[in-house]
Amino acid sequence: MSIDYDSYLGLERLLSAQNLRSVEFLRPAHDEMLFVIVHQTYELWFKQILHELDSVLDVFKAERVGEEHMGQVVARLERIIEIQKLMIHQVTILETMTPLDFLEFRDLLYPASGFQSAQFRLIENRLGLAADKRLFYGTGCYRDALASHQQQTVSAAEQEPSLFDRVQGWLERTPFLRTGSFDFWHAYRTAVNEAFARDEAMAKESPHMNAEERQRNLDTNAQNRKLFASLLDPKAFEELREQQRIRLSHRAAQAALFIQLFRDEPVLQLPFRLLTSLMTIDEQLSTWRYRHALMAKRMLGTKMGTGGSSGAAYLQKSTEAHKIFGDFFMLTTFLLPRSQRPPLPEAVLKALRFQF
Amino acid sequence: MSIDYDSYLGLERLLSAQNLRSVEFLRPAHDEMLFVIVHQTYELWFKQILHELDSVLDVFKAERVGEEHMGQVVARLERIIEIQKLMIHQVTILETMTPLDFLEFRDLLYPASGFQSAQFRLIENRLGLAADKRLFYGTGCYRDALASHQQQTVSAAEQEPSLFDRVQGWLERTPFLRTGSFDFWHAYRTAVNEAFARDEAMAKESPHMNAEERQRNLDTNAQNRKLFASLLDPKAFEELREQQRIRLSHRAAQAALFIQLFRDEPVLQLPFRLLTSLMTIDEQLSTWRYRHALMAKRMLGTKMGTGGSSGAAYLQKSTEAHKIFGDFFMLTTFLLPRSQRPPLPEAVLKALRFQF
Amino acid sequence: MSIDYDSYLGLERLLSAQNLRSVEFLRPAHDEMLFVIVHQTYELWFKQILHELDSVLDVFKAERVGEEHMGQVVARLERIIEIQKLMIHQVTILETMTPLDFLEFRDLLYPASGFQSAQFRLIENRLGLAADKRLFYGTGCYRDALASHQQQTVSAAEQEPSLFDRVQGWLERTPFLRTGSFDFWHAYRTAVNEAFARDEAMAKESPHMNAEERQRNLDTNAQNRKLFASLLDPKAFEELREQQRIRLSHRAAQAALFIQLFRDEPVLQLPFRLLTSLMTIDEQLSTWRYRHALMAKRMLGTKMGTGGSSGAAYLQKSTEAHKIFGDFFMLTTFLLPRSQRPPLPEAVLKALRFQF
Amino acid sequence: MSIDYDSYLGLERLLSAQNLRSVEFLRPAHDEMLFVIVHQTYELWFKQILHELDSVLDVFKAERVGEEHMGQVVARLERIIEIQKLMIHQVTILETMTPLDFLEFRDLLYPASGFQSAQFRLIENRLGLAADKRLFYGTGCYRDALASHQQQTVSAAEQEPSLFDRVQGWLERTPFLRTGSFDFWHAYRTAVNEAFARDEAMAKESPHMNAEERQRNLDTNAQNRKLFASLLDPKAFEELREQQRIRLSHRAAQAALFIQLFRDEPVLQLPFRLLTSLMTIDEQLSTWRYRHALMAKRMLGTKMGTGGSSGAAYLQKSTEAHKIFGDFFMLTTFLLPRSQRPPLPEAVLKALRFQF
Repeated sequence: MSIDYDSYLGLERLLSAQNLRSVEFLRPAHDEMLFVIVHQTYELWFKQILHELDSVLDVFKAERVGEEHMGQVVARLERIIEIQKLMIHQVTILETMTPLDFLEFRDLLYPASGFQSAQFRLIENRLGLAADKRLFYGTGCYRDALASHQQQTVSAAEQEPSLFDRVQGWLERTPFLRTGSFDFWHAYRTAVNEAFARDEAMAKESPHMNAEERQRNLDTNAQNRKLFASLLDPKAFEELREQQRIRLSHRAAQAALFIQLFRDEPVLQLPFRLLTSLMTIDEQLSTWRYRHALMAKRMLGTKMGTGGSSGAAYLQKSTEAHKIFGDFFMLTTFLLPRSQRPPLPEAVLKALRFQF
Repeated sequence: MSIDYDSYLGLERLLSAQNLRSVEFLRPAHDEMLFVIVHQTYELWFKQILHELDSVLDVFKAERVGEEHMGQVVARLERIIEIQKLMIHQVTILETMTPLDFLEFRDLLYPASGFQSAQFRLIENRLGLAADKRLFYGTGCYRDALASHQQQTVSAAEQEPSLFDRVQGWLERTPFLRTGSFDFWHAYRTAVNEAFARDEAMAKESPHMNAEERQRNLDTNAQNRKLFASLLDPKAFEELREQQRIRLSHRAAQAALFIQLFRDEPVLQLPFRLLTSLMTIDEQLSTWRYRHALMAKRMLGTKMGTGGSSGAAYLQKSTEAHKIFGDFFMLTTFLLPRSQRPPLPEAVLKALRFQF
Repeated sequence: MSIDYDSYLGLERLLSAQNLRSVEFLRPAHDEMLFVIVHQTYELWFKQILHELDSVLDVFKAERVGEEHMGQVVARLERIIEIQKLMIHQVTILETMTPLDFLEFRDLLYPASGFQSAQFRLIENRLGLAADKRLFYGTGCYRDALASHQQQTVSAAEQEPSLFDRVQGWLERTPFLRTGSFDFWHAYRTAVNEAFARDEAMAKESPHMNAEERQRNLDTNAQNRKLFASLLDPKAFEELREQQRIRLSHRAAQAALFIQLFRDEPVLQLPFRLLTSLMTIDEQLSTWRYRHALMAKRMLGTKMGTGGSSGAAYLQKSTEAHKIFGDFFMLTTFLLPRSQRPPLPEAVLKALRFQF
Repeated sequence: MSIDYDSYLGLERLLSAQNLRSVEFLRPAHDEMLFVIVHQTYELWFKQILHELDSVLDVFKAERVGEEHMGQVVARLERIIEIQKLMIHQVTILETMTPLDFLEFRDLLYPASGFQSAQFRLIENRLGLAADKRLFYGTGCYRDALASHQQQTVSAAEQEPSLFDRVQGWLERTPFLRTGSFDFWHAYRTAVNEAFARDEAMAKESPHMNAEERQRNLDTNAQNRKLFASLLDPKAFEELREQQRIRLSHRAAQAALFIQLFRDEPVLQLPFRLLTSLMTIDEQLSTWRYRHALMAKRMLGTKMGTGGSSGAAYLQKSTEAHKIFGDFFMLTTFLLPRSQRPPLPEAVLKALRFQF
């Protein structure tokens, strides 16, 4: 029943999995080992990320997510963030290989490519990358690059509720948006309108502004009213969703705003950390793609005047297109300073706090 | 003559330079201190980078750059890289401030903005950001945001020879491209043509390819011939320069290729490190802008469907547009594997090595 | 009322505070600028850490710490951790200066020394470094190195309740240790004794062990019983405190264990994060001292066979001696696996959860 | 002949090598996956480090190390440094596992331990950790923890010339220490003595010192003379070696000093980088052990008043004891400022520079 280090870690298997093509083809290239090990460690980290995501999705499957699980959910998302930081750092290791050294074995890799990583596609799908937002790679769908059994796994993950879907559902069920006679959305709208009215009055009456400043202030205010209208008016919001300029449901957006505004209340502290983690995961994924694209340009070169190979160009475009939780960044625009937030009635405050 | 820690570091001055607007306006916001100190440390690092750049530019002013200075030049560029890594890391510190906390004092900062950092503009100009490649910020030139004495300094730096210019001149003077009867460019062209001919012959005659594969191989080869023609044919190259798709002179490009290909020779080892450093500095500058743009989106929010405020959009566009040493990345496309390099005659090899 | 970037950041003052001794003494040394700026940025980060610590101490001054402040307290401690990570990273910047370059101006610094940083001493005192645990530096007290007005500030901070004191008081007031008929300490003791009895029975009766294994198991168990006795027996515990082998009060230790064991309960999630943050701050402080000591050895050299200058030796010894929250690491020894924890009665569970 | 991503990276083998004990024993513990993958990635990086070390040792086997290999040797050592930085960073990933979560499966690991990593022992031996400097782990030799075939490999590596040995031999063969009539050691000794004489004269005659300062100066000078005597006097030096207070030969120490002092000369720039890399590798190894020890204390707890488990204590002691290139740090003490270096005759300078 006892076990030693090597057996426990499966080292025999692990350390015999580096089969260098350059050695097989009798033209050994020193740096191929680095190339293999860098990619292998990435795949191990992908496996770990999937392990965390799966456990988080399990929690969110429940009709009512127990508060006693939130600490763990947040801790696991934060672990994913720590792993992502390491993955970004790890790009510098591959960059110790120079393009000239890569040329020694690059032709032997054809047509293997990082775009064939099934685990990475699974991560994107589990997080909730919308299938219709995906860039085409070359002329085809990203699934075409995968083996057929992988295509099935990845497609299934596309169909199943993703973390985006689960979190949206959970937000929509937030119990505090309407408590007794309190209606958060009504109170928020009132607070917003009061703020605009106050600013306009000040712009019109302030003795410290000249005509030009006055006009600029009023113009900005008018613009901002329009911006807020797109959130406050359910019809305008639905139009944006139909145009695929926003993905989050109106109800979920309200809950996310509520959490951000009143995050200091005990019951909202972990939900706030949850939303923050999702934004950070998205941000780190973008940063990783970006660093990856820079590294690819460095290793493969760029064509004159084009600024990149097709692989690097794909990666760079995907930093923007493959955003998953981008809507939460958008909501930041609609925050109000603490002093202008709608007041919460005593009954609501009580529900948000511990009773002991 | 003796000195203590506080006087040496000017701590009285340094630690009294945090004047919080929110305190001045009697609505103290805890996180403003972080905001100020993060930006102040950035400015201190900018000063250090300028200190290094100036000393490197001094060395390159000389008609003939002494080999005994190359170690120091490379070490100072590598120090800049280390500082850039810290600057990128430092973005995570500012991200510990949430948008809600930023809202507490954000209105008090108007119209101060990071785009008014004169030191950062100086760094761009000293490195050699081409004036006509600069993005407009809003409707105006980047200099309009600066105070008038700063505009002069920054304009002067635009006129003076930059690191790009100096390195280009130094590359053009590389003594090994023609030594006695050896002409590197002729030898390189021959090697390239031989490689193409060999590949084409193999594509035509190989019994292992079917008709389709054969055709694909020949097509790729034809494409690559066209690509190389743009470098090998001086006229084609000049056209690209006129179209501003490349900036480096043909002569400097040849020298850079020579250095990359024969970097293992003793006399080329530090020049190789120099070129590598410049590419890394460029890459890190891009990464810093990119992280900065992500952080700005997070802090300020994005407008629905647009993916960013104007500041964040400017930063993100500048990651691509404000490349300075991009041409060196482009040259990677023209490397040959070690085994296909043109052979160097004994006399040249001797000149590249130590004699002891 | 509007402000520009330079005035806001006090750049005129900030960027004129680099007065190089080597320039003053007419033997300019290029790397002195780096030396000054590295230390100045450290001092700016010290100021920021003090700003965070002071705000956290303010919250803990209250008789009853509101749950609605815990999120912010934890966030500010986590910010300190992020700053510490940067401070550790920053050591690599100073290491780009070689010993030979340091020699160019090292003699001009006498007798200034990092041991004269009053802000760093303040951080140690605010956190709660016990005055009688402090190492002597050379022959004297750490305060002797400071200017007289700084000695007063630092002494005052030694007298005032530190973060260690405040957190200890807060732990002692934890309301859940005795709720109605539930007595956590009694339940914990029972659970521990049951675990020991079970292990011993298994060791005695298991058919899978030979005589030697059986004995080893029983010995280990006996040893562990002794270890746990030092915590379970209040007298034994008090003796350890008198011998200064532990600093935390028995009551606070109980609360910390309770929090660690039941951290998944909603009301304990932030207290758990708080304790974790304090341990990480301690750990990072040690790592920073350690990296600092290595760097000092590198820069100043080590005497043959001694392994360090007196400064480096002090730093290295202080990594161990200047632990502040070490007792929380010690408590880890007394955790029980989730399955062996004492069961919590329904009434206690209810108090630990939200009621909505 | 073509290959896909999964086959190339051996993903089937790699991703099936995570066999969780907690799953096997039917009490699945979520965090065991992290524990396994963190250790597996460490072993992959160990393999990569050995790959680099072996190639560097191959170069140094030659009677005369070609200058055209030095660039690659240094680049590979610098790659090891980059990997070490990642390894240190990676400790933070394991720290996202809490002690309570570790308790869920910790008992199932017995007696597997990181001290059974054969690859890590190989790295220590290839670098040149002196067998008689090794700490005992528990009561036995480090080899006792390994399987018998690993004991052989590791013992063989103990016997073979290590990187320390090879670099020492290469230093001893440095051709510039005696060139024609120039004898570096004689010139260095003269320069040192002149510096001491000058300082003493100044101390005695300076009108700016009072009696006390004068005496302190003379005392420091006398002490330093003694320190330098241990290097300058071959007998004193041999005694230190016999007492194992220094390991480097006198001849190699002279060459290392020469390289440090005149590192700006072209021929010495890469040798200087080589020595610097070795010191950094040593430093990073220490930092990794130290971070590892802190993490172990956190995960396993410390016994009251002892400050660590035996594993953590071993790791912490080894940070100091297992130094490999410590002698190069010691040499820093004997550097002279550039202005006080012995002058190099024209003939020597010529040999140190390129001739073109």
